[in-house]
Amino acid sequence: MKVLVVGGTGTIGRAVADALRAEGHEVLSAERSGGDLRVDITSPESVRALFAQAGRVDAIVSCAGGAAWKPLAELTDEDFEMSLHYKLMGQVNLARYGAESVADGGSITLTSGVLATEPMPGSAAVSLVNAGLEGFARAAALDLPRGIRINVVSPPWVTETLQAMGMDTSIGMPAAQVARAYVDALGGAHNGQVLDARKYA
Amino acid sequence: MKVLVVGGTGTIGRAVADALRAEGHEVLSAERSGGDLRVDITSPESVRALFAQAGRVDAIVSCAGGAAWKPLAELTDEDFEMSLHYKLMGQVNLARYGAESVADGGSITLTSGVLATEPMPGSAAVSLVNAGLEGFARAAALDLPRGIRINVVSPPWVTETLQAMGMDTSIGMPAAQVARAYVDALGGAHNGQVLDARKYA
Repeated sequence: MKVLVVGGTGTIGRAVADALRAEGHEVLSAERSGGDLRVDITSPESVRALFAQAGRVDAIVSCAGGAAWKPLAELTDEDFEMSLHYKLMGQVNLARYGAESVADGGSITLTSGVLATEPMPGSAAVSLVNAGLEGFARAAALDLPRGIRINVVSPPWVTETLQAMGMDTSIGMPAAQVARAYVDALGGAHNGQVLDARKYA
Repeated sequence: MKVLVVGGTGTIGRAVADALRAEGHEVLSAERSGGDLRVDITSPESVRALFAQAGRVDAIVSCAGGAAWKPLAELTDEDFEMSLHYKLMGQVNLARYGAESVADGGSITLTSGVLATEPMPGSAAVSLVNAGLEGFARAAALDLPRGIRINVVSPPWVTETLQAMGMDTSIGMPAAQVARAYVDALGGAHNGQVLDARKYA
C-alpha cells in the first residue's frame, strides 16, 4: 500500500513509518519542514495543497498536532484556539480533504490519546481535543464513501517522550509498540473505532 | 439555590428552569434575546459580560448552543467553525469564565447529547462537539477550585423537538424527564461525569 504519513518525524510518527516500511508498504511523509511533502495542518489551504500534490494513496495516517497543556485557570482563549485548530481541526481536515485522495476501500487513521477518557490535572484542552477527534471519527465512519474506513489510535504516554522530558518512564509504552495499533488500523476491518494502543503492548 | 440557566427558552432549557423552580430554586435566565440577562455564547466578551452582571450564583446550567448537521462531504469549514464556537466553546467559556462566579461547592452543568458516542449519518460535527464537551468536563473537574463540580448531561432526542420537526417521536424522551438529569447534576455528588438523560426516564 501507498501510505501518506503526516507527522512522521515525531516520536510516534517515525515508529509508524518504520513499522509500515517493515510490512512492505510505501511511505510518503508530510511534515511542516522536511519530509517528502510539506504541510502545515493548522492551515486548511495547506492541507488542500498537500492532497493536490500527494496523488492517490491507499491510506492516510496522521500522527500530527498539538494542544495546550495547562491548568484550566491558566488556559487562555488563544490556547483553546490553537488546540482546536492544530490537533483537532488539523486532523479533521486531513480526513475531510484527504478522503477524495484515498483509494476505494482505503483507510484514514487519526491520533487522539488516553487523556480523552482518562484526564489529568492540566489536560482540559487536550482532553477536549482528543475526545472530539474520537466523536468525529465515530460519526465520519458512517458518511465516508467507497468503503473508506476511519479510525483513531489512542496512545498512552510514550516512553521515548517521557525520557526526553526527564519524567518517570514506568507508565510509558515504547513507540514501536504503539505503532502496532496504526498497522492494525490499516490492515484490519476496524471502522469508526478508537484503538487503545495499550492493547498492542 | 440561585441557578443561572443559559438557554432557558429552548425546549430542554424551559423544562430545566421549570423543574428547578418546582424544587424551590431561584432561576436567573440568560438568553440571546429575552430572559433576565442577555448573552451571545459565541462571543467570549459577551460571556464575560454576563458574569459581570450575574453576580454570585450557586450553579450554572447551560442548555445552549448548536452545531451543524450535514453529511460529512457537505460540511464546510464555516460549518465546523460555527459548531466549535457555538455549542462547544460557547459552553466551555461559560464554565471557564463562570467558575469565578460560582459559590464554594457549587456546580456547573453543560449539555452534550447521545450523538457523542452513538453517531448517525450527518452527525460528524455534532458528534465532535458533544464528545469534546464530555472530554473537557471530565478533565476540568480535576482543576476547578473550591469544591466546584462540573458535569455534562447527555440528552437523547427530545419528544417535543421531534414533534416540532414532524418526525417520528417514538425514539424521543419528554423534556420534563430529561430535566431530571440536570436536577440530579446540581444536587448530587457527581463530578466530571456524563449523565445519560435516558437513565432518568
